[in-house]
Parts: sequence; C-alpha cells; structure tokens
Amino acid sequence: MTAPISKPLSAMVVITNNIVMRLPARSLQHLAHRHRRFSISHIAMSQAFRQERDTFGDVQVPADRYWGAQTQRSLQNFDIGGAAERLPAPLIKAFGVLKKAASIVNVGYGLDPKIGEAIQEAADEVISGKLIDHFPLVVFQTGSGTQSNMNVNEVISNRAIELLGGELGSKKPVHPNDHVNMSQSSNDSFPTAMHVAAVTEIHNSLLPALVELRDALRHKAEEFKNIIKIGRTHLQDATPLTLGQEFSGYVQQIENGIHRVEAVIPRLSLLAQGGTAVGTGLNTKKGFDVKIATEVSKITGLEFKTAPNKFEALACHDALVEAHGALNVLACSLMKIANDIRFLGSGPRCGFGELLLPENEPGSSIMPGKVNPTQCEAVTMVAAQVMGNHTAVTVAGSNGHFELNVFKPVIIKNVLQSIRLLSDASRSFTKNCVVGIQANEKRIQFLLNQSLMLATILNSHLGYDNVAKCAKKAHREGTTLKEATVSLGFLTPEEFDEKVRPELMLYPDEA
Amino acid sequence: MTAPISKPLSAMVVITNNIVMRLPARSLQHLAHRHRRFSISHIAMSQAFRQERDTFGDVQVPADRYWGAQTQRSLQNFDIGGAAERLPAPLIKAFGVLKKAASIVNVGYGLDPKIGEAIQEAADEVISGKLIDHFPLVVFQTGSGTQSNMNVNEVISNRAIELLGGELGSKKPVHPNDHVNMSQSSNDSFPTAMHVAAVTEIHNSLLPALVELRDALRHKAEEFKNIIKIGRTHLQDATPLTLGQEFSGYVQQIENGIHRVEAVIPRLSLLAQGGTAVGTGLNTKKGFDVKIATEVSKITGLEFKTAPNKFEALACHDALVEAHGALNVLACSLMKIANDIRFLGSGPRCGFGELLLPENEPGSSIMPGKVNPTQCEAVTMVAAQVMGNHTAVTVAGSNGHFELNVFKPVIIKNVLQSIRLLSDASRSFTKNCVVGIQANEKRIQFLLNQSLMLATILNSHLGYDNVAKCAKKAHREGTTLKEATVSLGFLTPEEFDEKVRPELMLYPDEA
Amino acid sequence: MTAPISKPLSAMVVITNNIVMRLPARSLQHLAHRHRRFSISHIAMSQAFRQERDTFGDVQVPADRYWGAQTQRSLQNFDIGGAAERLPAPLIKAFGVLKKAASIVNVGYGLDPKIGEAIQEAADEVISGKLIDHFPLVVFQTGSGTQSNMNVNEVISNRAIELLGGELGSKKPVHPNDHVNMSQSSNDSFPTAMHVAAVTEIHNSLLPALVELRDALRHKAEEFKNIIKIGRTHLQDATPLTLGQEFSGYVQQIENGIHRVEAVIPRLSLLAQGGTAVGTGLNTKKGFDVKIATEVSKITGLEFKTAPNKFEALACHDALVEAHGALNVLACSLMKIANDIRFLGSGPRCGFGELLLPENEPGSSIMPGKVNPTQCEAVTMVAAQVMGNHTAVTVAGSNGHFELNVFKPVIIKNVLQSIRLLSDASRSFTKNCVVGIQANEKRIQFLLNQSLMLATILNSHLGYDNVAKCAKKAHREGTTLKEATVSLGFLTPEEFDEKVRPELMLYPDEA
Amino acid sequence: MTAPISKPLSAMVVITNNIVMRLPARSLQHLAHRHRRFSISHIAMSQAFRQERDTFGDVQVPADRYWGAQTQRSLQNFDIGGAAERLPAPLIKAFGVLKKAASIVNVGYGLDPKIGEAIQEAADEVISGKLIDHFPLVVFQTGSGTQSNMNVNEVISNRAIELLGGELGSKKPVHPNDHVNMSQSSNDSFPTAMHVAAVTEIHNSLLPALVELRDALRHKAEEFKNIIKIGRTHLQDATPLTLGQEFSGYVQQIENGIHRVEAVIPRLSLLAQGGTAVGTGLNTKKGFDVKIATEVSKITGLEFKTAPNKFEALACHDALVEAHGALNVLACSLMKIANDIRFLGSGPRCGFGELLLPENEPGSSIMPGKVNPTQCEAVTMVAAQVMGNHTAVTVAGSNGHFELNVFKPVIIKNVLQSIRLLSDASRSFTKNCVVGIQANEKRIQFLLNQSLMLATILNSHLGYDNVAKCAKKAHREGTTLKEATVSLGFLTPEEFDEKVRPELMLYPDEA
Repeated sequence: MTAPISKPLSAMVVITNNIVMRLPARSLQHLAHRHRRFSISHIAMSQAFRQERDTFGDVQVPADRYWGAQTQRSLQNFDIGGAAERLPAPLIKAFGVLKKAASIVNVGYGLDPKIGEAIQEAADEVISGKLIDHFPLVVFQTGSGTQSNMNVNEVISNRAIELLGGELGSKKPVHPNDHVNMSQSSNDSFPTAMHVAAVTEIHNSLLPALVELRDALRHKAEEFKNIIKIGRTHLQDATPLTLGQEFSGYVQQIENGIHRVEAVIPRLSLLAQGGTAVGTGLNTKKGFDVKIATEVSKITGLEFKTAPNKFEALACHDALVEAHGALNVLACSLMKIANDIRFLGSGPRCGFGELLLPENEPGSSIMPGKVNPTQCEAVTMVAAQVMGNHTAVTVAGSNGHFELNVFKPVIIKNVLQSIRLLSDASRSFTKNCVVGIQANEKRIQFLLNQSLMLATILNSHLGYDNVAKCAKKAHREGTTLKEATVSLGFLTPEEFDEKVRPELMLYPDEA
Repeated sequence: MTAPISKPLSAMVVITNNIVMRLPARSLQHLAHRHRRFSISHIAMSQAFRQERDTFGDVQVPADRYWGAQTQRSLQNFDIGGAAERLPAPLIKAFGVLKKAASIVNVGYGLDPKIGEAIQEAADEVISGKLIDHFPLVVFQTGSGTQSNMNVNEVISNRAIELLGGELGSKKPVHPNDHVNMSQSSNDSFPTAMHVAAVTEIHNSLLPALVELRDALRHKAEEFKNIIKIGRTHLQDATPLTLGQEFSGYVQQIENGIHRVEAVIPRLSLLAQGGTAVGTGLNTKKGFDVKIATEVSKITGLEFKTAPNKFEALACHDALVEAHGALNVLACSLMKIANDIRFLGSGPRCGFGELLLPENEPGSSIMPGKVNPTQCEAVTMVAAQVMGNHTAVTVAGSNGHFELNVFKPVIIKNVLQSIRLLSDASRSFTKNCVVGIQANEKRIQFLLNQSLMLATILNSHLGYDNVAKCAKKAHREGTTLKEATVSLGFLTPEEFDEKVRPELMLYPDEA
Repeated sequence: MTAPISKPLSAMVVITNNIVMRLPARSLQHLAHRHRRFSISHIAMSQAFRQERDTFGDVQVPADRYWGAQTQRSLQNFDIGGAAERLPAPLIKAFGVLKKAASIVNVGYGLDPKIGEAIQEAADEVISGKLIDHFPLVVFQTGSGTQSNMNVNEVISNRAIELLGGELGSKKPVHPNDHVNMSQSSNDSFPTAMHVAAVTEIHNSLLPALVELRDALRHKAEEFKNIIKIGRTHLQDATPLTLGQEFSGYVQQIENGIHRVEAVIPRLSLLAQGGTAVGTGLNTKKGFDVKIATEVSKITGLEFKTAPNKFEALACHDALVEAHGALNVLACSLMKIANDIRFLGSGPRCGFGELLLPENEPGSSIMPGKVNPTQCEAVTMVAAQVMGNHTAVTVAGSNGHFELNVFKPVIIKNVLQSIRLLSDASRSFTKNCVVGIQANEKRIQFLLNQSLMLATILNSHLGYDNVAKCAKKAHREGTTLKEATVSLGFLTPEEFDEKVRPELMLYPDEA
Repeated sequence: MTAPISKPLSAMVVITNNIVMRLPARSLQHLAHRHRRFSISHIAMSQAFRQERDTFGDVQVPADRYWGAQTQRSLQNFDIGGAAERLPAPLIKAFGVLKKAASIVNVGYGLDPKIGEAIQEAADEVISGKLIDHFPLVVFQTGSGTQSNMNVNEVISNRAIELLGGELGSKKPVHPNDHVNMSQSSNDSFPTAMHVAAVTEIHNSLLPALVELRDALRHKAEEFKNIIKIGRTHLQDATPLTLGQEFSGYVQQIENGIHRVEAVIPRLSLLAQGGTAVGTGLNTKKGFDVKIATEVSKITGLEFKTAPNKFEALACHDALVEAHGALNVLACSLMKIANDIRFLGSGPRCGFGELLLPENEPGSSIMPGKVNPTQCEAVTMVAAQVMGNHTAVTVAGSNGHFELNVFKPVIIKNVLQSIRLLSDASRSFTKNCVVGIQANEKRIQFLLNQSLMLATILNSHLGYDNVAKCAKKAHREGTTLKEATVSLGFLTPEEFDEKVRPELMLYPDEA
C-alpha cells in the first residue's frame, strides 16, 4: 500500500483558489510573499500537472492532489471568499462515512468487493482527516453541493485507484460516478452528509461541552449555597436570595439547553439517502435507503434512520432550521449568563463587585485588580454570531424551490460553525472562567446589609405604613434600615436583629 | 348580580391612551374628527370620573372603566404605539385563568371564600373576553409587565367589589393586591400568564389549523397520486415524479411542523408561579406553586406543571425563544410550500401552469384567467413577519439581567402574534386555496412529453453515448426525444413508446 | 354637502372581519358579549345592506360603509390577524394624498372638473383621518396591495358620489376605476403611497422626536459637564471622564441617527407612480409621472420626485429596506443609551447608583427608593421590536419576482410601525425620563475617590513600578490609593492631593 | 537589513491555536497526519523557543514568530473556532497603516526618528501582507480587540528590533507599548483599524466589483432593448415590456446600491484615534487625532477625518451597523436579480426558458441542455449569509456598555466578510454568468404571441365587454387571442395585426 501524497516542492501555484500558473522556480519566493494575505495554505506547489477529464473536456489538475476535473472547475468558477470559506471539515468527514457505508451496501448489491474495499479504505482516510487538503471547495458554489459530492467521489476514486496500483485520473479500476457514487445522487448524498455531520458534531462536541459547563455551574451553585445576597430585578435592589440560587438558574438554562438540542435529534437523524435525484429513488434499489442508515449508524456509533419521505428531505431543510433554533436558544442562554457574571464581577471598586473572576491575562499594565471579563466577552460575541447564523439559516431554509433546496452548503456551514463556536466557547468559558469564579463574600455581605429591601419581612410585625416610614427615613437620610427603625422607636436593636434575618427570606413559608 | 358596565355617553375623552380631559359637549364632535386617525376605539366616553388611589396619590379614572390608579398611570406614561400595540387578548384571558386559579388555591390557604368566589366570578368574565375593553395597556410599558398584572388585579377587584355591592375604587371588600394578587408577584404572574397563553393558543388555534392544512394537502397528494409530471431541481427539468409525491413532501413538512410545536410543550407548560419577586417564593406558601399548576390545568383542560427552578423561570425566557423557533420553522415550511404552489400555478400561458388555483377575486378587469395567487402571497407575507418576530424574540430573550428578564411584554406579544398569524393564514390558505387546487393535467402531460430527461431510462438499452446523441439532437433541433431517437435509427416509434415510460421512473428498482 | 355616514344602530354584524350576518335584534347583545375578545371596534352595526358589484358578481356590503365589492371580498377571503393587523393609518392618508394629486393632474388631462373636485374633496376627508373606519383591510392580503388600492378607490368614489347627490354603489357619476384610479394601477399606486407615507411620517413624527431627544440629552451633557466620574471599560473601573462627556456620546449617537435617516430620503422620496402595471407606463400619459410628484410635493409640503426607473420601483423595495436600515441603527443606539442609563441608575444601594431617574409610578409598595427604570425598559423593548421588524423587511424585500415585489403590505406595515414606535418611545423617554435625570453627585464622588485608576497620573512622578506597588497595596488591603501611597512613604497627603487630580485626566495634554 | 523569518524545520508544534509541545522529530510526521483536519497552516514548526514576558510573567513563544507574550496568552486562552476564525487580513493591514501613521506623527512629537523609521518599515511589511502568518488570533477573544492590538505591537516591535540588529523579545530598542503603541490605547486603535479596513475594502474591492456588475447588466439592457416579452406580476402573465427594460431595473438596483454604500462613508471614515482609553484623550497630545487622520489618508489615498466625538466612537459602532445596512440592501438586490435570472433561464423545456445562461460545468451527464444556474445559486447563498451577518452585527452593535463596546472583533469580522463575499460574488456572477447571458428570442416571441394580455390595447377600439369576450373565449378554448377575436367577427386578421402591436404597449401615451 502506498502512502498518501505528501507535498513535494513544485513549480506551479494555485492562488486564491482559481488561478493556476506554471512558474519558473525563481518567481515562487516572490509570489509566496505577495500572496501571504491568502495564507500559506492557499499556495499548493507541485512538480507537475495531471490531466483529468469530464463531459466538458480536459482539465489540468495539480499532480499532488487527488481531486479531478469537476473539483478543479469549481475552484476556477467560484473564486468567492478564499480559503476561509471552505466547507468545514466535519462535513467532509461525514461524506467519508457516507461513501464508506454506500460502498458496503453496494457490495451487497453486486459491486466488485475488491473495488468496494479500496473505496472503504480511501473513505477511512477521508474520515481520519488526513486528506483534508484535497477538499478545497468553498461554500459559495452550486447550491446543491454537487461539486463537493464530486470532490469526494474524485478524491476517493483516485486514492482507491492508487491503492490498487492504478493511474490517477484514469478512472480505472475505480470510477468516481459508477463506483464511488453508485446508487447515489448529489441531491440525496449532500443532505445526508449534512445530517450526519450535524448529529455527529452535536454528540461528539456540543453535548459534552454543555455537560461540562452545566456541571461546573452546578458545582458553583453548590459551593455558593449559603451565601446570601441582594436580589436584583429591573437592575434595582430587591429581596435576597443565595448566590447558589442565582447560579442554579444558570444550571437550569444549560440543562434545558441540552434537552433542547436532544429534542431535535429525532428529525435531524433522518437521512435523505435513497431519494436520488428528485426523491423518487430512481436508479437505486429498494431497501438501499434503510441499509445505508444502518451502515452509517454502525460506523458512527450513533442512531440514524432513513427519512420517511425523501421528497421533503431533498426539497427543504426544516430539520436543520429547527436544529439551529436550539442553538439559537443556547446563544440566548449564554448571553444572559455571561452578562450576569461580568456585571456581578464588575469593579473592582466601582461596580457590583460580588464575584471575583479568574485573571488570565494583563487587563492593564498599571491597575492591579483590573480583570477584564474577557471570557465573558468571547462568549457573548459567539452568541451574537450564532444569532446571526440563525437568520442566515432561516433565510436559506425558506428559499427552496420544487424538488431541491439549493442553499445546502450555506446552511450546513452555518450550522456547523455555530456548533463549533458554542462548543469551543463553552469549554473555554468553563475552563478559563467558571471553575475559577470566587464569591467576594465581604462585598456581598456589605451590600446585603445596607439594602432597604429587608424591610419586607417586617410588614407582618409593624404593618405596612410603619415599615414604609422606616424605609423612607433610611433612604432619605442614607442610614441603614436598622438605624431608622430603631430611631423611630419601632424596635430595639435586639428586636431588629432577631426579626430581620435574610435567611428567613429565601423560601416560601411553611403552608 | 349586576351586569358589567356598558358604554354610556360621556363628557370625557381619553385620547391616544394618555390624555384625559373634561370637555364641554360641543368640543366632542370636533375632537372626534381630529383624532379619528387613532381609530374610534381609542375614544372612550364617560359621564363621570372616579377617583382611584395608589402609593403615589390620587388619579382620575373614567367612571365606566374597572381599571384603577396604576393602570391609569401606565396609560399616561407610556403613550407608545396606540391601540394597535395593546397586549393581545389571549394574554389577558390567561391572566383571568391564573387569577381564578390563584383564588381557588388561596381559599384553601385561608382567603375568605366569599371574596374568593367574587374574584373567581370576575375572573371568569375576564376569561370570557367580555371585559377586554378594560385592558388598554400597550406592550411598551414596564418590562416586567407589572402594570398589566396590576391592570388585571384592579379590574378583577373592582368588578368583584361591584358584584358584592361595594363601591368601585374603595378596594373594599376586595383589594387588588391583598386579595386578587395574594401570594403572587408580577414577577412570577406575568411569565405564568405568558406560558398559559402560549400553550393555550398553540393547542386551541395553531395545532388544529395545522392539522387542517396537513389533511387538505394529504387529500391532494392522494388525489394527484397518478399524475406523472416533470421534476425540477435547480429550477431545471429533471427526472419525473408524481404530483402526489410532490405534495407528499408538503404533507411531511406540516406533519413535522406539528411534531416540532409539540416538542416544545414540555418546557413551555412549566409555570413560574410560586417564585414571587426573585424566584425564592418569599411571601408565598410551600406547595402553592404545585397547586396553582394543578388548578390552571383543570381550568384550561391542558397539562401544566410547576417549573422545577423558579430562578430560571423569571430571569430568562428561553422556553419562549425555543417555542418561537418552532414557529420560525413553520414560517420556512409555509414559505416553501406557498412559493411552489404559486410558481406551479403561474401562467396561464407563459408560466409553469401545472396547477389551477381557485379564483377568489378579480385579478384584473380585462384578462380572464389571470388568477393572482393571493392566498400564497398572504402566507408568504406571514412567513416574513414570523421570521422578523423571531429576531425580536431572540434579541429580547437574550437581554435579561440578574433575577428578571424585563422584555416580557414584547416577547409574548411577538409569540402570540406569530401563533395567530400562522393559525389564521393556515386556515385561510387551506380553505381559500389548497382545497380548490386542480391539476392542469393537459399541461402537465405536455411538459412531461417534451422533456428530454426521460432519456435517462434508455441508458441501459442503448448505452450512455447513444442516448446522449439522441438527447443532444432533440435539444439542438427542438424536437421531441422520440423523434430524435427514431430518426437516428436507434428505436422504432413502437419500441420507444414501450421503453420510455415515465411510470417506471417513480420508484427505486426492485433489489 | 352631506356629512359623512355616522354609525347608526343596526341589525347586521361584521365579526372578525369576514362574517356578515343578518340578525334579529335580540341576538345582538349576546353576540356583542361573545365576541368582545375581538374588541368592540370590530362590530359594526348597520340598519341595512347595500349591494355592490364587481366582475365576479354581487356582494352585500354594510350600508353605513363606503367600501365596495372588492374590499368586501378581501375582508371575507383574508381573515388573518383581525383588526390589530389593519394597514396603518399613515398609509391610508398617503393614499388620500395620492388620489387627490392624481385627480388634479387628471383634470389637466381631461377629467371632468366636477368629478375631479368631488374626488379631491373626498380625498381630503381620507387625508384628515375622518374616514379611517372605512379602511378595514389587513396587511395579509394580496401582496401587491391591490385590494387596499381598490378600497381607497371605492371609498373615495362612493363618498364623491354622495357629495354629488348620487347613489352609493352606482359607480355614477364617479367610477372607482375609471375616475379615481384613472391613469393608475395598483402596481404603481401602492408603492407610491408606501414612499409618501414613510417620508411623511419620518418628517412629521420621527425627526422631530429625535431632535427633542437629542436636545434633552445635550442639555444634560451641558448640565453635567463639571461632574467628574469614574470611567468604565469592559464594565471595569477605568480612567475618569465627566458625566457630561459620557452624555455627549449619546448626543452624538442621536445626532448621527438624524443624519442617517436624512441620508435615505434621496431614494425614499422617489415615486413609482407612472409605471402602471409593469413599469412601462402603459395606459398613462407622458409627463403624468412628473406631474404627480409635483402635486404630491405641494400637498405634503415635502419634496418628492418621480423615480428615474419605474421597473426598479415596482419590482423591488430596496429603498424601504435601506430606510429601515437607518431605523435599525436607531434601535441599536437607543438600546445602548437606555441600557447605560438604567445601569448607571441601578440601586438605590446595591448598584452603580450614579444617576437618579424620575419616579413615575410605584416600583414597589414597600420599598421607597425602588425606582424601576420603566422608560428605559419600554425603549429597549421598542429596540428589540425594530430589530425584528428589520429582519421581516429584509426577508420581504429580498423575495420579489420579475416585474412586481408582492410583499408590499408587510414591508410598509413594519416600516411604519418602526417609525411610530421609535418616535413615540423617543418622546416618552425624553419627557418621562431624560429631562428628569439627576446626577447623584455624592455617590459619583465617592466612587471616583475610591478608584485605583487615578494612579495612572503618578507614573511620571514615581515611576511605573512604585505606582504599581501603591495600587496593589490599596487593592489588597481595601484602602484608598492615597492611604497606600502615603503609608508607603512615596508622598505626603498634601503632595498626593496636589498631584492626583482627576480634573487633569479629562483631556489630551497640550502638545 | 535582514529578511523576515522564513519557516525552518522544527521540533515544536502549535496545534489548534493553543497547545504548545516540544516533540522529538519522529513524532512530527504522526502528528501532522493526525491533525490535518486543522489544516496544515495550523501547524507551525520551529527549531527553538524564545522567552517573552509581560506583567503576568514569562511565556514560551515559537522562535520563528514575531509575536510576544500577550499574543501567546490569547492563543492559549481562546481556543475558539480554530484558524477559520482568525481576524481577517484587511484588518491586520489596516493596523499596519495605523501603526505607520502613528509612528510618523509620534516622531513629530519627539519619538526617536531611528526607532520611528524601523517601526514604519515593519509596518510596511504588515501592510504588504507578508507577515500575515504572525497574526494567529481569533475573533472570539477579548471584546475590545486588545490582544490583537498587542499582537500588532509585538510583531512590529520585534521585526523593528530585528531590523535594527537587536534581540527578539528584548523589547529594546523598540518597545511594543512605549514606542509602537505610543499615544494610543487598544480602545481607540482597534476601532480606528476597523474603520480603515472597512473603508479600504469598500473602495478597493466592493465598489469596483459593483461597477463591473452594473456595467455588465447595462450592456445587456442595451443589447436586449428591442426584444419585447411578456411581463409578469404576481408571477402571472401581464402586459409586455422589453427584456432591456427588465434588465434596466437590475441596473438601477446596483446603481442605487453603489450610492447607498457611498452614503455611509461620511460616518465610516471618521476615526476614533486620539480618544485613548475612555474617549478623553488622556496620555495623548492635543492635535494627535487630527494628524493621525491626515497620515492615514496619505497612506491609503482615501479621505479620513478624526471623529468629532471620541466617546461615541469607542462606546458604540453605529457607523458599522449602518454600513452593514447598506450591504444588507445589496444582499436583497442580488437575491432578487439572481432569482429572476435563474427563473427566466429555467428549462430547457419545462420552465420559463426566456434566457440562456452560460454553461460552466456539467449539470448532468445525460441531459444536454441541463444548465444549472450555479452562479445564481452562489450569489443567493451569499445574500443569505450577508443577511445573517447583518443580524450578528446588529446584536453586537446594540450591546455596548458605558465607555466601550466590547463586541468589536465580531462586528468587524462580519462586516469584512460581507464586503468580501459581496465583492467576490459580484465579480464571479458578472464574469461567469451575466456577460454570457443570451436571450432565447424564439421562446420569448412564442410566449408573447400566445399571451392574452395583449387584449388590453383593444379596449379603446372594441369596448371592454367585447374584448373580455374575446379573451375569455381564447382562454376557454386554448386558442390565440387573434383566433378568438377573428372568429367572433370583431376584427379581420389584418385588422388584428395592425392594432394589436406589443411595441405600442411599452411606453406611456403621448400626452
């Protein structure tokens, strides 16, 4: 077995995705500098070209890349956004899973097992991520993702040909369409890969990150359960609660967020495969759809089923709009939690100052104690991005026509970006902020004591009007509630201390 | 028992919600004209004023209205948007349900049963809708909805006082705070009413409307199951499917939409009641929360439970953001379906022309056959509005702080508007469009026959290259595929007709 | 001249916009109660019906309404959203302006002046708002707004007929199409009314409200110009500025907002009129377009021009999407300003507490000093709504096809709602909050003094390392910077007071 | 002068932005494979480390990178999104411009000219793009962008040190804070770079691309000016227009789009520089702000001015929200135009079929003539993304607090992405689609002839009722209008042809 192509020196440069030039060696250094803005990964160098061919004719392809004619045409026709806009890796990996599964099923339907095994081996390399540089296509291509499906077919076929000792570009003995894409159409393959990628990333990345965050918040809620603090409604002083109770609300938000994400899985784990071009299943076999879902489940270890109606599965992406709706709620939850934490940590002298956040980097070279809540800022920026992505997905999801929604790449790109950002931000926030949050108990106690809201509890003892007099006097004169109450002669200091106990204000009364 | 106040003539005018003037009778006609832009319903006339009072002092209130001082202040302080921006009726009704439930529970905790019964009777009138004109407050008030909770308390207390023969505004024997709002705070009451209203409208209005639409579409899918038509992907001619299959995709979209809405109920049916001011339950009784949920369930006939964490239930509205996410997917589905139907019905001569839509009104005075797809247009406009509302709800839901989200009124207004619009539009679309859709079978057949895509099925007989020759010739010369195939000598007309049968292209092959 | 129809008692009920029934008098009371949820204004009562007619046949219309057959059909076919979703009054008034202008121009092209004058008189009544109850149609109708254009034509023709002594519904001597709609099509009339309404509301309502708000903020900036306070970046204590400087930022935001709104007028004041059905101007006269713009300018006192390309003016609404973009920025500005003000006013004891906001209503019955920043809350809710409306307008604006965008009603409804809400909220905020804001100078001074950020100014005297020692000591020990600096022996108390003067930190150094 | 660091072999790997490990050489191959999913550019290899230092202590930095301690900490603390989320190159280049300008101005205020020149030379290298791999930080970092400002300071200082023969990391003789950041703060530098980047990209990339597109559309409008076709409103057949007129609407949309973008420049070209930490200008010099704007203008060749109010310029980003509003309108315009073009090009047999779009790649292997409108699909996907970005920018722009908006990186990332995508998509659409569009004149003529809408012109000859009879007959019997009119005896064939001439229906009548 041959190792995959590595990156030899070369005399050809592919710049910003679509310009291919043969260059004398001496120009390379110059070009490399001039085009560094496109990042070094855009400059692929090869010793030679290979000729590939499709129904439009011949195309020159870099010799050190497995892709073929259709991929190369897309690179040249869609110079939109550059490398930053490439389709995300989890989608490519999901395609690897799909092509492997299809090959296994196709062998059952008569595909030469030798070809099937080579496809499966190449697909495994796609799944592993080691061929990622062979998938250069951007989001803004054909709206069915056909060109990316062909990119996968071309790469797997060429790599399988190589594994079998054949010649790259010969399409023999492994043909990209006839063998790798057997019984499939881009129109059902691409949406299948979308769902496989989304479900996989949710399971492997998002849910574990949310569990970590929820658990870290729960740990804090427990740690802070006896710290009584002033409550705030309308941003104004209100009756007390414990800091643990306050954090328990955040725990519940993330807990619900986990349930929300899980609640979309029943529809997100349905696969379009088997619908082929328009949903009828023309050119595939009865049962192919069910078998594919079974194989994909085996490979991923996650449960997938075939979609009950393939017309719906090709023509709209409601399930992904729905799934992003759950991500959108997470964005709202994280925005709220991160805002609270940074406001409660504001100061050190002139803010709320109830929390002490971990210091991760210099906030200012001259002011000790200036901890900028940078993790909260990253989280809230992620939230804004996810809300924006939600609009993109909604607009794209609503604009399908007839048998095919052709906003597929932009939908899956936004969904996967949101999953990635929410996962990474949750982990970063947990590790670099939440676990290190400390309560500034002295400050919390100070604020609680000077609050006038504790007067509430005296209503049943002194009557509303008298209590109001005490509170108003304290407010007007800037004294404590205790001082005002005592000086008005309603209670002795001892009586006040006995009756006005915040710890009695944290729960409903016994019935 | 006294009947509720009717609307007598009056010498007082309330204009655009906040200006109250005593006027000589001769000015009324003039004013009525000048302010007609605010619509006649803004001008309430009464013979006299009543003095109401709150902690800020005395307020003049129209004698023919049950509301009190706090409602009147809100009217005067929030002159934003006029009558069009009033909080929606289903929220007011949900408040009626809540106050009735609270009264029942409070009698169990010691509230005088006579007072309790009067409250329940008044609450029933709120539920019935007959007191709706006594709820004039707009969305853009305090963000906790406190003023609307007080509006409810004031109206129910005054109406209960009236029922018991007391004097309006006396707060005796039924006090708006001490009795109607007993054991409650605006901070837990308003979000409770939000959830009750949303769940009730979903059950009573949205889900039945969606079921009607789904069934009407399913009926059409059945009716059209044998009509074979050209498929379209990328808007371009593709392989055939039946019109019934095409409609079955729409059925599945709405079916899934129903499941999506149902999937949010577990979190939307949780009630904040019992959390009082900050979530601790201060000033209420242990068990009050559970009992309220039980009573609300009894009154509405729908299942509600108390929220497991009241801090979360007050401080954020993730559950409503989530619920609106399901509405957002419905908007996407309806946009897609309505777009398809109006495009398939485009013509009558120069469009796709495959469907005949019901003619409901003149499309043009000179062109018979110009049926404008107006129901589709209303549906797609509703979809655009719902997508916009979703952004509003998302922004509002993400901006809570500390113990209370203060975007409550704008959140519930958008949620209820979206539910109403989706319900009404679904019903209107079903009744005025879907049930009357007819297939233009002649046109469908004509298009199918001239399509070149049927060539696909000849691949296995003639080989790809020969088939391509036939299709290219037909395309170039503008003939049918049959003519081209026959003239190239590949098949006789009889052979062609025998082999090229679209009805064989509608399903996967037997394995 | 006859007075317009008033509202006599009646035996017919129009409920929820589309059900028309003859009822025995005894049923009315019952129905009135049952349908109060739809608000009393939905129930129009009349003594009799009138028969109106269009190309689809006869229709029964309430005798006390001027509308005709096409309006009545729309009421019956689009039962979506109820009275709350009626097209806004400023659009109806703009239609009045347009029909008056058209009549004036048409007389110049040969329309019988007697008919022309009657149309103009009826149009004036539409402009005055006194006929508003004759415009019952909702947003969610045909997407071209044809039915509302016909509503205007029907009302003006019937009222003009009445003025000329004719019979309602006879279409003689004033025909809704031939005379009122002469040389016009819905397709150019509706977008013309959209632009006229938007520009008029911007000029008459929004800009004055913004000027008021800007001036009130500027007044405060001046009033607060000598109050030095702690600055806050990342919510954390930072170097000082004056409260006046802080407010000057808000002034600049609103000032820029005014410029932004003005910057869209060049494209928003272009009128589609003259394009008729598809933009070609078929069935109108050369020069009609220019003359209409001139007459509309005269009537409104605002400058309008004819659109240079009528195809663009019918087929898309980019100018309204652009205009709403300016409203969207205002929403962002107001969200920021209102957030700052409520946070700076948070407390009274446990928040930032630098501002004292006006007390407009009871915040709580037991806690004096609990002022809820309710005006800020209304403003931020308006901001959320406007951001949502922006998405609705964007989606609707992007979805036009061929010669006509058919999302017209939903676009103008959202634009006008946003203008109204921003105008009203700005005025309410100015009057009920901004003008009454007071600085809590004692609190501001206290916070400034205990800040450690003033250390910055000592860097040049003591060197960075020594200053850092002082600040760290103060932070660690909870003392003031002065105490720490003196106790470390770097400065005497007098020296400290002489050097550490916040008033030196408010401006750049002299060069 | 030394050349910039190239990339030597190494034994250290930086993976996914934040894990730094020393590794034996034999592990590298393995790791390279395992982490290929992160793209090769994430794996930076160096022979050694360098120790850098900030106020938090020592940090190990790859020896072949110019960045210092603060950059390295950010890499480690914000592992969010990976390389795909790096701040875009145009922002880095704008920072180069700013630092060069600041150095020039600072020399005027006393900075050692030798240091100044070295800074300028290093800044020029940043501007050229050749140091782009030294800027690894992601969007989701501190919300002020402080870490990226420090990244720039560190890279320029180290490169300047190198140019002057010093030791990397020594901060001598060029200190990142004292010299490169002299008289600046991140809080004014980052927003300055945001505006410089946005204005530059608009001028250099977006506006030229829009001009190209507008001109290509105008060329087509001219080319198609004599081709008369059926118009379509509500998607239904309507009166005729020329294909050139239809395209002229698109021209006007893009022309207006150019004006819209230009209209935001007055506020977008204002620079925050000179405000320093909170807007007061503390630690800078009077006049510094004006001089910076002058130098930036000189370097870029574009006009920039200093912001009149620095508090506004730091605390909010209304100008960027406004600018993105103009991009949002472009998205709507492009969505409309691309939708029209792909629908008009739909077919080849079963769609509208009026346009022939260029064939750029195989649409299907079996169906000649199946041209998928892939360029339109890319454009509409870009439109959806830009609408989503607009929500992200709006949410981020509305959430600033006090003296600093801390959503800066996410705002500029979305703005620059939208500019890039709109520019690239416009160019791609122009080149690969618009310039190659051909009219299918035969099809256009066929559809025009069979339309019934031409009847409109007979109204004045035969009267409305008779014309209606003809049209209805033709519609009912499926014949042409001519056949129906002749068979009813209203006109001879010759009379019909003389009167019914579409070319008379394209303009208003002579007055």
